[in-house]
Amino acid sequence: MNSNDLESQMKFIIEIDKLKSIFRQNYLIDSSRRENDSEHSWHLSMMVITLADHFENIDVCKTVKMVLIHDLVEIYAGDTFAYDESANIGKEQREKESAKKLFSLLPRNQSDKYIKLWYEFEDMTTSESVFANIVDRLQLLLLNVYSKGKMWHKRKVTLENVLKREKPIFDKAPRVITKYFNELINESIENNYFYIE
Amino acid sequence: MNSNDLESQMKFIIEIDKLKSIFRQNYLIDSSRRENDSEHSWHLSMMVITLADHFENIDVCKTVKMVLIHDLVEIYAGDTFAYDESANIGKEQREKESAKKLFSLLPRNQSDKYIKLWYEFEDMTTSESVFANIVDRLQLLLLNVYSKGKMWHKRKVTLENVLKREKPIFDKAPRVITKYFNELINESIENNYFYIE
Repeated sequence: MNSNDLESQMKFIIEIDKLKSIFRQNYLIDSSRRENDSEHSWHLSMMVITLADHFENIDVCKTVKMVLIHDLVEIYAGDTFAYDESANIGKEQREKESAKKLFSLLPRNQSDKYIKLWYEFEDMTTSESVFANIVDRLQLLLLNVYSKGKMWHKRKVTLENVLKREKPIFDKAPRVITKYFNELINESIENNYFYIE
Repeated sequence: MNSNDLESQMKFIIEIDKLKSIFRQNYLIDSSRRENDSEHSWHLSMMVITLADHFENIDVCKTVKMVLIHDLVEIYAGDTFAYDESANIGKEQREKESAKKLFSLLPRNQSDKYIKLWYEFEDMTTSESVFANIVDRLQLLLLNVYSKGKMWHKRKVTLENVLKREKPIFDKAPRVITKYFNELINESIENNYFYIE
C-alpha cells in the first residue's frame, strides 16, 4: 500500500457517496420518507453483527463486508423494484457493468476482492451469502410491517407476491428466524398491511 | 441464543432505525442536503475495510463494529456540533445515559459488548479506536472539502478551528494518510473553503 493506492482508494470513497442518493421503494419505520441504499446497508450490517449467533459456520466479518458493498452497483444501475417484472429485464447485465465501472477505481487486488464478494452475495451458495440475503429480506420486511404496509399499498404488493419472493429465502433460515418471519406475515395479514386486489 | 434473545434483538434493530433521522451539520458531496448518522456510519465502515492495509496491528472486524455503532448514542442525545463549545457542555453525560437506555434493549451479554466498544471508540487508547477516529475525521473532512466548504462557511468554521481539532488526530495516522490530510487542508486554503473572520 502506497500513496498511489491511497489516491485510488480515496477516489472510490468519494464516488460511493452517491449511494446516499439512491432511494429504495420502502419507507423508514416512521413513514416520513423513503430509505436510501446507504442507510439500508448500514442497517443490514448492524443486523449481521447483532444476529450472528443465531447462524452457524459464519465468518461475521466477511458477511458484514458483503452487506456493506452489496448495493454499490446501484450507483450506476439504479434501484430495481423487486416486483416490477419488466424493470428486472436486463438488471443483471446493468449491474455487472456498474460493478466493473465502480470497482475498477480501486487498486486491482482490492477491486477483484470486492467484485468476488458481490458475486458471492448474488449467487447465494455459501453460508455467509445465505445469511446476508436473509438479513436483506428481513430488514425490508421489518420496515414494511412497522410502517404499516405503506409501500405495499402504494406499489400494490399482495401477500402472495411477498410469500412467493421471500418464503424460499426464509426456508433456509434458522428455525427461530423462520418463526419470526411467519409472525410478521401473520401480523401483516391481521392488520391489512398487504394490498388486496 | 433463543426466541427471547431474538425478540430483544429485533426491538433494538427496530429502534435504531431512528439513526436515519439524526442529521449532522455537514453536507453530502453533491451539497444537496445534510448527511445523517446512519449514512455517515456506513461510509466509515466502507473506509475501514478499504483503508485497513495502511494501518498496522488492526482487528478490522472490531474496527468496523466500532464505527457501525459509534453514533448510536445520538438517537437520544442528538448530534452535538463539534465547534459549539456551549452545546458540548454535558455531552458526555447525555451520551452515557443514551447508551445505557439504547443498549439495554439487547440481551445483557451483547449490551455489555456494545457499550464496551463504544467506550473504546471514545477513549482512543487502542490501535482500532485510533484507526476508527482517524477515519471519522477524514470522512468529515472529505465531505466538507468536496462540497466546497459549504458547512464551514455556513457555521463559520475557520482553518484554525479545523487544525486545532483535527491535527492531533492526524499526527497519529500513518504517514501516507497525514500527507493526504495536509493536501486536503492546502486545497481548502487555496480555494477559500474555510470561513475567514
